[in-house]
Amino acid sequence: MVSKAQIQFIRSLDRKKERDESGCFIVEGDKIVRELLRLPVESSFRIRNLFGLEIWLREQEHEIINKPDQVQMVSEAELERMSLMKTPNQALAIASKPEPSTRNFNFNSDLLIGLDHVQDPGNVGTLVRLADWFGLAGVVSSMDSADFFSPKVVQSSMGSIFRVHLLQTSLNSFLSDLPQGFPVYASSLAGTSIYKANLTRNGIILMGNESKGLTPSFQNLSVNDLLIPDFSVGAGKPESLNVSVAAAIICSEFRRR
Amino acid sequence: MVSKAQIQFIRSLDRKKERDESGCFIVEGDKIVRELLRLPVESSFRIRNLFGLEIWLREQEHEIINKPDQVQMVSEAELERMSLMKTPNQALAIASKPEPSTRNFNFNSDLLIGLDHVQDPGNVGTLVRLADWFGLAGVVSSMDSADFFSPKVVQSSMGSIFRVHLLQTSLNSFLSDLPQGFPVYASSLAGTSIYKANLTRNGIILMGNESKGLTPSFQNLSVNDLLIPDFSVGAGKPESLNVSVAAAIICSEFRRR
Repeated sequence: MVSKAQIQFIRSLDRKKERDESGCFIVEGDKIVRELLRLPVESSFRIRNLFGLEIWLREQEHEIINKPDQVQMVSEAELERMSLMKTPNQALAIASKPEPSTRNFNFNSDLLIGLDHVQDPGNVGTLVRLADWFGLAGVVSSMDSADFFSPKVVQSSMGSIFRVHLLQTSLNSFLSDLPQGFPVYASSLAGTSIYKANLTRNGIILMGNESKGLTPSFQNLSVNDLLIPDFSVGAGKPESLNVSVAAAIICSEFRRR
Repeated sequence: MVSKAQIQFIRSLDRKKERDESGCFIVEGDKIVRELLRLPVESSFRIRNLFGLEIWLREQEHEIINKPDQVQMVSEAELERMSLMKTPNQALAIASKPEPSTRNFNFNSDLLIGLDHVQDPGNVGTLVRLADWFGLAGVVSSMDSADFFSPKVVQSSMGSIFRVHLLQTSLNSFLSDLPQGFPVYASSLAGTSIYKANLTRNGIILMGNESKGLTPSFQNLSVNDLLIPDFSVGAGKPESLNVSVAAAIICSEFRRR
């Protein structure tokens, strides 16, 4: 039996305040909970509680055998009551958030993405997934960006959230504290074509807010503006590309070189 | 005054069946309705009705002066009643859909995107916007993809829907009827690296369903599989990239060459 207090606690993790206070977040659904279970021991994510349907838990026997205190069998009705999803999917875990730290980064070699006020959780999740795909070392986001550990970001990252170093902090301070000469790039509507620009191995690629773009004060840093050329033909101009699409093109070009 | 029947008709255009029967679709919001108003005369889109707040209509005086029969001033309350958006935004138009035709394409030079069962309207809209940005000639989609003229696709295309030739048809027949030797590409998890593949000027790039990928029968065509290499490091593998992100990387690479 899952207690009412447990269900209340789980549902409260939909809010950032509660996640920050408890240091926990929710991981939901068969695929992503299985990823969480299979993380290597050196991962900084820890499972505090794992709720699963009987049939699902049987399939994970091998992974859960050494976690007797955390695992709890639930009925479909119980899973539904604790779930934040429209269609609950077999398993739900409460995981502890890793301590954020800049020590995870090696500024001599690391390529990072910096998110400045990226508000849409779906975009933040997609950007984390993208950083994972292209082997970037981490994603640093401003305090006014969507929280990495909100349920929607976790879902849309498709598990990439476990494999990329994440740091939500004052982006301003982070950028000021960067080692001298660490390259800062920004996606921009004016600048050097991404296909011709000089791209270094290390650096941080800044992506701005979905409608307002980059905070003007960041543009005063010695930023290398990267332009994705517009090849459109005919009347009118297309709107700028969306933030995940622009980041994808830029990351791809960094890795192609 | 807007009649009850008008409001009912407008709201019915949320459904594909009603759009197909009437040949109309809804264009909502200041920015995109302004784009519609400013389309060149050779555009195949026509405005049937335009509803706007007084202040908004005044700003568009120059564009609406020759459309006295179509334009109707509405109150905020009326706009709210007809709108399909959560926050109605100054103007709403009913536009007629252009006749779909393959004659819009020049197979000697055109680069196209083909959508096979891409279901999410946000993805379809983003893909149209992407095609516009990279100057592709058109987007061809299977009958089971999201309708180009659904309100969500129109919104997320940000007006690009007016500037790219769109054709929803049997993708199977379309591909069978292509001129001999017209190059067919597909985003794939196995194939030649996009960075090394031979990319032609013309062709169609097939993008598959969000979770199932490309229909197996299409893979039997003589398709050039394009792989976006996975640079991820550490334990586990990232999920495949989402369809818009993958298409963005592929289109960018075609245009870079």
